[in-house]
Amino acid sequence: MSRFWSTLVNKLTPYVPGEQPKLTSLVKLNTNENPYAPSPKVLQAMQAELADTLRLYPDPNGDHLKATIAKYHGVDKSQVFLGNGSDEVLAHAFAALLQHDAPLLFPDISYSFYPVYCGLFGVDYRQVPLDAEFAICVEDYDQHCGAIIFPNPNAPTAKLLPLAAVESLLQRHPEQVVLVDEAYIDFGGESAIGLVDHYPNLLVVQTLSKSRSLAGLRVGFAIGHADLIEALERVKNSFNSYPLDKVALAGAAASFGDEAYFQEKCQVIIATREQLSSQMRDLGFEVLPSAANFIFARHPQHDAAQLAAALRKHSIIVRHFKQDRIEQFLRISIGTDAECKLLVDALHKLLSV
Amino acid sequence: MSRFWSTLVNKLTPYVPGEQPKLTSLVKLNTNENPYAPSPKVLQAMQAELADTLRLYPDPNGDHLKATIAKYHGVDKSQVFLGNGSDEVLAHAFAALLQHDAPLLFPDISYSFYPVYCGLFGVDYRQVPLDAEFAICVEDYDQHCGAIIFPNPNAPTAKLLPLAAVESLLQRHPEQVVLVDEAYIDFGGESAIGLVDHYPNLLVVQTLSKSRSLAGLRVGFAIGHADLIEALERVKNSFNSYPLDKVALAGAAASFGDEAYFQEKCQVIIATREQLSSQMRDLGFEVLPSAANFIFARHPQHDAAQLAAALRKHSIIVRHFKQDRIEQFLRISIGTDAECKLLVDALHKLLSV
Repeated sequence: MSRFWSTLVNKLTPYVPGEQPKLTSLVKLNTNENPYAPSPKVLQAMQAELADTLRLYPDPNGDHLKATIAKYHGVDKSQVFLGNGSDEVLAHAFAALLQHDAPLLFPDISYSFYPVYCGLFGVDYRQVPLDAEFAICVEDYDQHCGAIIFPNPNAPTAKLLPLAAVESLLQRHPEQVVLVDEAYIDFGGESAIGLVDHYPNLLVVQTLSKSRSLAGLRVGFAIGHADLIEALERVKNSFNSYPLDKVALAGAAASFGDEAYFQEKCQVIIATREQLSSQMRDLGFEVLPSAANFIFARHPQHDAAQLAAALRKHSIIVRHFKQDRIEQFLRISIGTDAECKLLVDALHKLLSV
Repeated sequence: MSRFWSTLVNKLTPYVPGEQPKLTSLVKLNTNENPYAPSPKVLQAMQAELADTLRLYPDPNGDHLKATIAKYHGVDKSQVFLGNGSDEVLAHAFAALLQHDAPLLFPDISYSFYPVYCGLFGVDYRQVPLDAEFAICVEDYDQHCGAIIFPNPNAPTAKLLPLAAVESLLQRHPEQVVLVDEAYIDFGGESAIGLVDHYPNLLVVQTLSKSRSLAGLRVGFAIGHADLIEALERVKNSFNSYPLDKVALAGAAASFGDEAYFQEKCQVIIATREQLSSQMRDLGFEVLPSAANFIFARHPQHDAAQLAAALRKHSIIVRHFKQDRIEQFLRISIGTDAECKLLVDALHKLLSV
């Protein structure tokens, strides 16, 4: 600390992202990236931006990308907000829509960035325990609150809350914003975007990082009632006018123009996930039912931290959270079939010792 | 407004960026972009990133770019902070280093985003008037304050505060952060970066948007004592882990590898600026001495707003600020020689009517 720091800085506990190793020989199953390349159409669109025009500012409103996403999801352009990855979208949502006198509610096991945002924006919060099967129980949120946020599917559990339950939550809290963080929804869940015209308190956040293979490009978005979007725009335009560069805007828009590629890769990942889940269960793991591009698994006889360390020696990185209730779990991203085979082979060796 | 908005949102007065017209036939002298393309080496480096690896997250710390900038400016890597344009760097600096009990000081005529940041981060501020010649007077800042920020050269006046005066300000305020916003320093000023090892209270912010022709890429950085940088990192890592995408990181680093191109373009712009200033004076304008890639000029007999509107009819856009003391000025970005000739020709016609 230093005498020049603001009071806020001293109080912060920053988020720690998953490791991004410089070694490319590792089997990287630790940060839920997509094992497949982005669509060739995305790369073509980005290519077209590598030009003299980079000297000019991008469109601060990202109108073309907004219109593309609006059309894709069947909403109005005024219902779309863009950000530098869904993390930036979430950050602005904490400032604009989740900061109230009553506490924000979110699951006790959830995206570990939420309490960090609360620290940054001075948001009081209460964590609502998942049930014994690590599921969100809508009834448990029947309490005094300023707003609600949760990932669906949840992270790191990978469990999906069915859309009917999401709708029930919206109905139980008509005066509170309910933010559904759908980073992983394309891997088997049903999006709440179809509900935004019925629930003015619903904000859905998605990202192009996972299902569209563009973690390296930093594009996320929110969809909701135009009033909620306006709040986000006001904060964004008080923070940074141009969070998305020209290349990112073009690549992101092109991604929505290759539906066949998108669907195919999602289906492949789902198939690999189901096969890996089955193989892991055969190895004695308990694997939570996953609707995401990762699985959450524990072994009754093997310590998770030790397993993660042992896998690392086999050049395989998975993620382990030192956290109550889940410290015996590993979060494993779905790789290619070949990568998952390497994982299963390594586990075979480790578990038979 | 909406019942779902936080109290903060209702109080915000967002920044309004200069117009980014969709028409490409306009002579665009309104947002201080560089009229010349970025270095071909930048485009090559970006090209190499248009690959399968976009599926992976970028380096959250931007180590390679940090090391490149550190080497270029002769500082340690721990003294460099990266952001999504210098606007994001400034935003984090407001939260981390400029938010104190005593008011922040900045010039009354200055970058109009500063009071917007103050609104977002709840920073109390006091504006210190420029003198009659629109210069910053260091002595005027001898007052109770929490921190100081100013652009150098100042915007939109284009006037430079000599480095000796910057150093005097640092010495007068050893207990306060002095943030020097050097967006335009490469067009004729001497950077304060050389002072960071002597003054732990100095933070210098620069951007690649102007002198490196990369407004479309969104990269800015700060250089200062490692303690100041750590404060920025703490806020950044509580907000968004990966603000710079892979393509931007690569392009930005390559920009520092083509010094000859960079110097040549800066010199051309300086030469054009001096010629344009002279021609404008011949037309009867008062042109403030500029050390930036724009000029700030007024005509004793012609209303600035009317002139801007008339130029627009000639397909030339310049920027006019409806603001006390400067409402009779136009801010005109330095274009190519051909663009500046079009401007001078149009002004000839308009002024002779």
